[in-house]
Amino acid sequence: MQDSRDPGTSALSRAAIIAVGSELLTPLRIDTNSLFITEQLNLLGIDVVAKAIVGDDRDELAHLLGVMLARVDLVVLCGGLGPTDDDVTREVAAAVLGLELHESTEITDRLRQRFASRFQGPMPEINRRQAMVPAGAQVIENTRGSAPGLWIASGSGIVLLLPGPPRELRPMLLAIVDGPLRERGAGVALVRRIVRIAGRIESQAEEQLRPLYRQWETWPHPVAATILAALGQLELHLSARAVSRAEAEQVVAAAVADVERVFGLDVFSTDGRSLEHVVGDLLAERGLTIATAESCTGGLIASRLTDVAGSSRYVDRGVITYSNTAKTDLLGVPADLIATHGAVSEAVALSMADGIRARAGVSVGVGVTGIAGPGGGSPEKPVGTVAVAAMTANVTRSAVFRFLGEREQVKFQASQAALDMVRRIMLEAP
Amino acid sequence: MQDSRDPGTSALSRAAIIAVGSELLTPLRIDTNSLFITEQLNLLGIDVVAKAIVGDDRDELAHLLGVMLARVDLVVLCGGLGPTDDDVTREVAAAVLGLELHESTEITDRLRQRFASRFQGPMPEINRRQAMVPAGAQVIENTRGSAPGLWIASGSGIVLLLPGPPRELRPMLLAIVDGPLRERGAGVALVRRIVRIAGRIESQAEEQLRPLYRQWETWPHPVAATILAALGQLELHLSARAVSRAEAEQVVAAAVADVERVFGLDVFSTDGRSLEHVVGDLLAERGLTIATAESCTGGLIASRLTDVAGSSRYVDRGVITYSNTAKTDLLGVPADLIATHGAVSEAVALSMADGIRARAGVSVGVGVTGIAGPGGGSPEKPVGTVAVAAMTANVTRSAVFRFLGEREQVKFQASQAALDMVRRIMLEAP
Repeated sequence: MQDSRDPGTSALSRAAIIAVGSELLTPLRIDTNSLFITEQLNLLGIDVVAKAIVGDDRDELAHLLGVMLARVDLVVLCGGLGPTDDDVTREVAAAVLGLELHESTEITDRLRQRFASRFQGPMPEINRRQAMVPAGAQVIENTRGSAPGLWIASGSGIVLLLPGPPRELRPMLLAIVDGPLRERGAGVALVRRIVRIAGRIESQAEEQLRPLYRQWETWPHPVAATILAALGQLELHLSARAVSRAEAEQVVAAAVADVERVFGLDVFSTDGRSLEHVVGDLLAERGLTIATAESCTGGLIASRLTDVAGSSRYVDRGVITYSNTAKTDLLGVPADLIATHGAVSEAVALSMADGIRARAGVSVGVGVTGIAGPGGGSPEKPVGTVAVAAMTANVTRSAVFRFLGEREQVKFQASQAALDMVRRIMLEAP
Repeated sequence: MQDSRDPGTSALSRAAIIAVGSELLTPLRIDTNSLFITEQLNLLGIDVVAKAIVGDDRDELAHLLGVMLARVDLVVLCGGLGPTDDDVTREVAAAVLGLELHESTEITDRLRQRFASRFQGPMPEINRRQAMVPAGAQVIENTRGSAPGLWIASGSGIVLLLPGPPRELRPMLLAIVDGPLRERGAGVALVRRIVRIAGRIESQAEEQLRPLYRQWETWPHPVAATILAALGQLELHLSARAVSRAEAEQVVAAAVADVERVFGLDVFSTDGRSLEHVVGDLLAERGLTIATAESCTGGLIASRLTDVAGSSRYVDRGVITYSNTAKTDLLGVPADLIATHGAVSEAVALSMADGIRARAGVSVGVGVTGIAGPGGGSPEKPVGTVAVAAMTANVTRSAVFRFLGEREQVKFQASQAALDMVRRIMLEAP
């Protein structure tokens, strides 16, 4: 691939993305185009080393574009290509690169046709601004909107201008990735995988991973690893670069296998699936059914299980028993068991799991009772105390957890612990 | 307020936010902290003029921090304050500002205590990095994690370092906003309010709002309005600027009242509360109780209701009846009613609401049955068809909706329609 390149152009390896638009500097909107752009650039072996967001402000944009151009080979600018005065991207890019703007009559004609056919009217004169093209730039057609894109070579680097609306930007970027950008890519593919781990804390996992980090530094291609502590799980992001995508995938797969050897059953997903998806797939594969009995999680476990398409095959029912009466009515939890152990206890969680399993006639029953907070805690059972039980015909498991955080965080962590317990008893059962 | 300011410090008016973390430069993660930070800074009259995202890379961060410091009064850095080698924010900020780092034994002691009490073990030595403080910096306590924040004065400007996890960052920022930052604000307050509206579509609402938009252009201060179509609701964001927060609040409150006149009962929240929160408050105020019977929403309605603190006062129980047997067992829905009308029908939703209300002995019963997809649709009842019913002793309401979107979107819209129906029957009942 390298051989076919024009010898006068070097490979692009470092990119920056600048999103332009004052609405992106309010508390209400966020730039999401950069995720798609990053994914596409990474596949060509181009790293995104910085992202920035500026308003519809000539000075700020000019300044940031200048700064970025000095540090990377490719700057992708999104947004600010509309016809109005506050759309400044075209003019600022031309000014920063020292290029003159000329009206492309071809674009103007296309715009006039667009207005005639879509809006049954003449093009407002203001839209001629969208036909202005910097000298030497390549125009990228926009089939879904009025703003064309621009591919501008500047020295050894590239500035790429794309419109902000995702549905316009995406096909245009794909056309560029398959066209001029492919030839300029680093000829190296970057592949990522996420390994999700339950039941470990970050610093502990980090300790155990250290020997792998060292091993991955060199062989056979370096593997980059980042560990992120998410609520109720750890995520290990692994990536590797190689001349072909297949080779990069092979290297990352070997690293994933290394992690699985170290963490064993604690690894619940190596392919992006969520815990509820993994649990659902296990239930479906084994032809099992499940029913849930929830107190403090308030239906979240059942809701997560039923977020998975096809879950009606294995989710039979669930009950949410907030009141003690409901626990007795719907699950047959003995009132004196609650009186003796308290509603938040391993004994009651077990009785809930047992009750729902027997009454629904399903393979797996799960029971959760706890104190989500902010009220209801006591010195022996502080907010965050959650008892979880899971049960099949042959296996019974229960535990008491103490989660930190706000009400919603406690609920989520409790649902995560319950789903993970279900996963483990399925994997450990004969 | 201006008078009480230290004459040696000038007001802050322009801010930049830099999010630090290599995961934020992948296609998988996005910075959302900046939305909350922007909201808080705006309330003090501080504009955010640029945002940037860099990886765990000393050079890139040092460069961008230098660039931003030259253009704004306040730089907020989020993330990269952990204990590991790739957490570089503390060191880079100190280096760029030319400040020495010293270990704070107070922080080290606090960290050791934290590890002893939470993890029943000694603090890994690596965590001492989190106790390093640049000369002259003010330490901001982190009650929810190990990384303290730092407030560093640099010339006439400020650099603020906060940890990346939102649940740690948010209370720390609020403490700063109420403390050192309030005294340094621009003396012009920007106030925003969100009006949430159910049961209208965007273009319709836009039409009805047009006369208000014109009216708001001038009097007594201009009110800016943006309408956003969120899932299952419209959000109207209103903002105004005035010399005092009280005055800005008054102007926005008048605009909110205008909107309420136009949309009546369709406005369900004018103070940021979610629909589940509004419904919960209505139930609590009236001393009512509720129980839910869910099929396609799979527990989401109950989970949303129980996300609200104090919901155990009014949520008695819920059942998730995915299978027809469960509908009959747990709710007494007659098998022949299901056979005649189909499980997804207004008749079955009504029977579910009635069944749960009677069996739980609560004031309000709600029943939902539908097709969340992607499978299970038919020409007469396509994916997205959802029947909803709500019932009190005096009022019965039901409707069939047809929602667009993926499985999770259908679930959410169905839960929204059910909660909104509960809200309306409470407001309309005598």
